Amino acid sequence: MRLITLTTDFGWTEYVGAMKGVIHSIHPGATIVDITHGVRRFDVRHGAYVIGTTYQYFPKGTIHCAVVDPGVGTERRGIIFSAGGHTFVGPDNGLFSMVGGVKAIYAITAKPKARTFWGRDVFAPASARLAMGTEPRELGRRIDGYERLEFRAGVSGRRALGEVICVDHFGDVITSLRGEHLAALGAEHGARLEVKIKGKKRDLRLLESYGHARKGELLCLVGSAGYLELAVNQGDAAARLGVVGGERIEVRL
Amino acid sequence: MRLITLTTDFGWTEYVGAMKGVIHSIHPGATIVDITHGVRRFDVRHGAYVIGTTYQYFPKGTIHCAVVDPGVGTERRGIIFSAGGHTFVGPDNGLFSMVGGVKAIYAITAKPKARTFWGRDVFAPASARLAMGTEPRELGRRIDGYERLEFRAGVSGRRALGEVICVDHFGDVITSLRGEHLAALGAEHGARLEVKIKGKKRDLRLLESYGHARKGELLCLVGSAGYLELAVNQGDAAARLGVVGGERIEVRL
Amino acid sequence: MRLITLTTDFGWTEYVGAMKGVIHSIHPGATIVDITHGVRRFDVRHGAYVIGTTYQYFPKGTIHCAVVDPGVGTERRGIIFSAGGHTFVGPDNGLFSMVGGVKAIYAITAKPKARTFWGRDVFAPASARLAMGTEPRELGRRIDGYERLEFRAGVSGRRALGEVICVDHFGDVITSLRGEHLAALGAEHGARLEVKIKGKKRDLRLLESYGHARKGELLCLVGSAGYLELAVNQGDAAARLGVVGGERIEVRL
Repeated sequence: MRLITLTTDFGWTEYVGAMKGVIHSIHPGATIVDITHGVRRFDVRHGAYVIGTTYQYFPKGTIHCAVVDPGVGTERRGIIFSAGGHTFVGPDNGLFSMVGGVKAIYAITAKPKARTFWGRDVFAPASARLAMGTEPRELGRRIDGYERLEFRAGVSGRRALGEVICVDHFGDVITSLRGEHLAALGAEHGARLEVKIKGKKRDLRLLESYGHARKGELLCLVGSAGYLELAVNQGDAAARLGVVGGERIEVRL
Repeated sequence: MRLITLTTDFGWTEYVGAMKGVIHSIHPGATIVDITHGVRRFDVRHGAYVIGTTYQYFPKGTIHCAVVDPGVGTERRGIIFSAGGHTFVGPDNGLFSMVGGVKAIYAITAKPKARTFWGRDVFAPASARLAMGTEPRELGRRIDGYERLEFRAGVSGRRALGEVICVDHFGDVITSLRGEHLAALGAEHGARLEVKIKGKKRDLRLLESYGHARKGELLCLVGSAGYLELAVNQGDAAARLGVVGGERIEVRL
Repeated sequence: MRLITLTTDFGWTEYVGAMKGVIHSIHPGATIVDITHGVRRFDVRHGAYVIGTTYQYFPKGTIHCAVVDPGVGTERRGIIFSAGGHTFVGPDNGLFSMVGGVKAIYAITAKPKARTFWGRDVFAPASARLAMGTEPRELGRRIDGYERLEFRAGVSGRRALGEVICVDHFGDVITSLRGEHLAALGAEHGARLEVKIKGKKRDLRLLESYGHARKGELLCLVGSAGYLELAVNQGDAAARLGVVGGERIEVRL
């Protein structure tokens, strides 16, 4: 039994229900697991982060169907590819930029009934067929490249430079900087970091967990996916900082 | 194996969890698929649209349990009926107005433990039993009619007249007018439509997909369920127009 | 087959998706049912209400995994316990205060990979193993006590005194007072209650269902879980009263 996961920016709406209906119609007995449908509307970068940090918790063999697709109905392609024993299905618009080890990419040849709903008419049926054992080459033609988005993240001298990838449900501000970047600065738990974001510098503690900060304190933390977060203990960092995604961030020890 | 779908205005809350618990308690091994629980609170018309445009993507034999039920606990009945090989369960308040080919309607005879939660106490148990093979006639008494809501939609001379059914997660404004009504006006892709809504006329392009408009452009489009939508490419048409549902709309070529 | 339920304040995000991936990786074929992920962020009392009023609708043998855990990564323990034939897994912070008949409590000995995500790294794996037949004693060490929160609720003379536990999706204000407390005051359906909340007294009808009130009327009702609610027929009582949870309430006949 190969699982099918779904990740979209559809919200938890009937658009998701229709995709599930299509999958069950093709593949009775399918097991479908929602990763999330709460990707910020039209935000391919947010989708890329969600998929790239979650797929690896599923068993190998899982089919990951993802749809964040503001260009639906235009010339962008649909693709199927493999990476690390998992299979991915979705639009070729950068949504899979944070999946490593990509190989064997196929452009899906099926066309949708409704130009505006590839999720229901193309990606769901392809995912159902893959879960039943159809080979990707039966659903598309082999291609070489695919779209990748860049996330700025690096260390230059004593500064780490990155960007905000997204804001999570708790208002935690997730950045493109990782534990490695902080290590390169020599920052350890308990260190004070100078964080510049939206033109303002702040002096924040790098802590191990939210609960180690005072209630309401703005803190830094390397989150459960390995990325530097700005968070407020029992509060909403994004609301406090006025951040929505895409902002530049600069960190010094 | 007959699937059970759920559609409610409960939000994704424990009220849904309780319904699922009841179903699994009666029918271990049930497969339950959420269509959505995001129907606008108390909005039977929105619920009718969601069910009427989604059920057909599920396999025949599916049991569709729907609860948008502002009159819960009053004298309105619960019903079970068949249409097109699917079975429907829910309140008799117009929620199934967009399901065609209705036949064999039964009024459910069971009474709820809690007057305010027919979903948990009546509709979920009935759905579980139907999925296990119980016949509708064992759960209710045959009746002739059921409640139907009217949606205004028609062409008069050179004008199509309709109403806003609902607003979707993307802020797309979904109307009761269909591709047929536009065809009757002679409107084709690329045409300019004069759209009157909330007392204001706008000149909008009828396009094939969101991405064919400029970013931020207000456009018209026949959506994936066949209904005329007003949308903004990568934006929120409902917010821009101040529309929530129920507004009258008038379209000319 | 033992079901696994999930209840969190994660929102319907990829954090839930990751937990499900972990469960399926350990226990292929697991059946996972969401109770809700809409517990108010960081609100352990709301979580306690949701779990305490929902678990009993699931079959005996179900594993209920719950995570509302503002203290994640600090010294609070993870626990497993039994109650009424159900098994519970989660943080020992009061989240299970409304589950009765607790016995056989174990402190989980596993440590998380990421200090900030016990849900994914500790509670999900423990739940998967329990569903596969592992005994709680294989996952922890027996302990005697666990955290319990108190909810104020009682009758003093002719007044019932309680507090607001939470606000539901419909804006209904759910209080800690139960049908028993109203019975002790001699209140029956149709009675007028004097309700004092946020320093203001109101004269409200105690009705059987929302639809028995006039549209827009603020009413009292004993809800489907047995608790006194303040509600507005087809409206939002919490918004009208300015209530979010934790407020004191006083009721007289």
